[in-house]
Amino acid sequence: MEYMYDYDALWEMLHERRYRELRDAMVDMNEVDIAQFIIDLRPEEYAIIAFRALPKELAADVFSNLEADIQEAIINAITDKELAEIMSDLYVDDAVDMLEELPANVVKRVLKNTSPEDRKLINQFLKYPENSAGSIMTAEFIDLKENMTVEDAIKRIRRTGEDKETIYTCYVLDIRRHLIGVVTVKNLLLAQDDDSVTDIMDEDVMKVITTDDQEEVAYLFSKYDLLSIPVVDKENRLVGIITVDDAVDVMEREATEDFEKMAAMIPSEKPYLKTGVWTLAKNRIPWLMVLMLSATVTGTILGRFEEAFQYFPILVTCIPMLTDTGGNAGNQTSTTVIRGMAVKDIELKDVFQVLWKEVRVAVICGTALSFVNFIRLLIMNPGKIMESLTISISVLFTVLLANTVASVLPLLAKRLNLDPALVASPALTTVVDGIALTVYFMIAKMLLPI
Amino acid sequence: MEYMYDYDALWEMLHERRYRELRDAMVDMNEVDIAQFIIDLRPEEYAIIAFRALPKELAADVFSNLEADIQEAIINAITDKELAEIMSDLYVDDAVDMLEELPANVVKRVLKNTSPEDRKLINQFLKYPENSAGSIMTAEFIDLKENMTVEDAIKRIRRTGEDKETIYTCYVLDIRRHLIGVVTVKNLLLAQDDDSVTDIMDEDVMKVITTDDQEEVAYLFSKYDLLSIPVVDKENRLVGIITVDDAVDVMEREATEDFEKMAAMIPSEKPYLKTGVWTLAKNRIPWLMVLMLSATVTGTILGRFEEAFQYFPILVTCIPMLTDTGGNAGNQTSTTVIRGMAVKDIELKDVFQVLWKEVRVAVICGTALSFVNFIRLLIMNPGKIMESLTISISVLFTVLLANTVASVLPLLAKRLNLDPALVASPALTTVVDGIALTVYFMIAKMLLPI
Repeated sequence: MEYMYDYDALWEMLHERRYRELRDAMVDMNEVDIAQFIIDLRPEEYAIIAFRALPKELAADVFSNLEADIQEAIINAITDKELAEIMSDLYVDDAVDMLEELPANVVKRVLKNTSPEDRKLINQFLKYPENSAGSIMTAEFIDLKENMTVEDAIKRIRRTGEDKETIYTCYVLDIRRHLIGVVTVKNLLLAQDDDSVTDIMDEDVMKVITTDDQEEVAYLFSKYDLLSIPVVDKENRLVGIITVDDAVDVMEREATEDFEKMAAMIPSEKPYLKTGVWTLAKNRIPWLMVLMLSATVTGTILGRFEEAFQYFPILVTCIPMLTDTGGNAGNQTSTTVIRGMAVKDIELKDVFQVLWKEVRVAVICGTALSFVNFIRLLIMNPGKIMESLTISISVLFTVLLANTVASVLPLLAKRLNLDPALVASPALTTVVDGIALTVYFMIAKMLLPI
Repeated sequence: MEYMYDYDALWEMLHERRYRELRDAMVDMNEVDIAQFIIDLRPEEYAIIAFRALPKELAADVFSNLEADIQEAIINAITDKELAEIMSDLYVDDAVDMLEELPANVVKRVLKNTSPEDRKLINQFLKYPENSAGSIMTAEFIDLKENMTVEDAIKRIRRTGEDKETIYTCYVLDIRRHLIGVVTVKNLLLAQDDDSVTDIMDEDVMKVITTDDQEEVAYLFSKYDLLSIPVVDKENRLVGIITVDDAVDVMEREATEDFEKMAAMIPSEKPYLKTGVWTLAKNRIPWLMVLMLSATVTGTILGRFEEAFQYFPILVTCIPMLTDTGGNAGNQTSTTVIRGMAVKDIELKDVFQVLWKEVRVAVICGTALSFVNFIRLLIMNPGKIMESLTISISVLFTVLLANTVASVLPLLAKRLNLDPALVASPALTTVVDGIALTVYFMIAKMLLPI
């Protein structure tokens, strides 16, 4: 189902300097796959040679799919003229993505070889805050004037469509470039040639502002099944569009970030295999450290019940089972709630509904676990009824407390404008461990002669 | 940025039976939002009244955005004629989604009120396995014949485009309906009227087969920035298309499933708030039970070192810190690797690269944690140098072992064609706990007079 190319054959052509053959083979490929071939070439010189073998009209498309380090190597190897050609063919959003990764001296040379018009646009786009709608939009859209007919519009698309990211949604602007409506190519094709664009356009435009959060923008694409969305400034002037492929990238990246945060890591910027060992360690140590030190609290609680160990060693051997079960139950709840909030299935106003649901689920799960555990303990430790009872009742209470805390904390974090993913499983574990052990020994004191 | 409607005003219109006003208000709304308004209405009778107030041409669009229980209530309330109208306007993929949720007697009535042609198609689509490309495709695409000119093609789009899910990619078929190329509306608009479709079409079509996994299909959309992809049968006959909005839904659902699996839950079919307490408990108990029972192993390991407790209680109070740290470190690694595999940043062939990277990260993280822990222990327990050393060295080894196991297990699972998400954090914890404690007491035996 994916395109399958004979990468080995390409490699041979490159190695044996059959560049014309290589060029012809690459022309038949998808630009994403050409980029993949080039990215995998080592040493870098081969990547540069392969890239330069591409015909001019493919160069920019492939270039925008490369990774920052190879882009930099290529820029440093090509002439100003080649660079200028690539820059004139790159979409503004791809140019901005690239420039954000490059060192300052390379950026300077790139901008020097960009047309003044594009340079102005790029500099403007570079200023939008990270993770904003402005930072992922592009400037290559089709704008129509309000006095155009359908025939005029189709002519304009035919004339200017070649270089646009999408031609399927066109934006109707008034004379001061305010966005007053959208019209799709479908609308245009299904209308009469002499209809006025303003008559068939949809005035009720869904749009976002440059400063809106990219995650909210991605959510709109998923909710309303959009192919693109216009981005306006505070005065409703159209400045760019976001296309669905970029929204998909945002969704994937945001989901990955949530996975990372929920596993107690600081999200990393690059793919795993491209991230250095020191960066990975730097992203992981802070939470490991916080969690390790806070586990001391659990240790202190354990220390307070030292005598109990002496008389009932079975209580000690069950500690890992108890804290693990509490951790697992809490993890199930917090993951459910955090992901539910991320996809907007759960909102702040649902807090009591969630809590009440989790309490009931905890009673069912806890009772089942408690019962099985009681049987197991009695079989493995015949006669030790009171000890088994102590441990099993503690399991039920631990699950109950774990689910309660785990359902409320993420919603509380959201309420306080913190990221709910931060109070996921690992941060919870310490809290749940402490509570579980305290309850455990309180129940032990009630039921056993300690 | 989202459409904001005055839902209270709509509710008042409904309540005061101002149905004509309600209808006019709804006509101006987006169908996703109308559906949301109807879904939130209680009791169900109101939902049915609001739905019936919709004009015919909006009914199917809104209907496909409703949830199964309300769809069923509406079907049971409307006449055969109304039902037939909705069915003739529904896209096949939406009809199939709905029929999969409805009870058999309702399905029977729905199919009775569907045109024979659509019924045949629906029955065929219902047979594709769950999670296959066939199960998410739709039949409303534009097909062009190989002998058409650009002008013919545009005429055909204008004539038949109204009811298609997308008109922007058209599929060129030979006389036996084999897929021989694709042509976009952009290609058509930018070509000359008398060009032949076969001359401008792209013959190198990216396509999937009905039985391909929907997750792989979604991956193609994200990798190649597609808007739609054709679905063919084993003989390369075009049977349907998948559009990007459905691919986005698959991506979100698959990410949610991974979150659920990695938190030791069986993925649920419906959104959280719509899932019953018993179903939630049923999805959570199996893993909780398995993990609880396997934690017994850890308990047994603890039991074997009972004497050590007597002489060095400090070793016991550090157990939660040690097992938590191992669990957290392993969780970081396994989450990174599993997510990396899900987005195809990491593949099976990278196993040694991943392992080597994780070992080095573990050495850095473990050393940092170990050092801080040693200082803390010395401050809190002056003079207990050997005990502090034992515990701190164990921290380093635990992190090292946790990262090793956590980087290899998901890749091993994949190699064995198991779901990597299943060996995520909770399942790992038990393994890591056991290893950590064994190492702990081995080091204790070496360094302390036990």
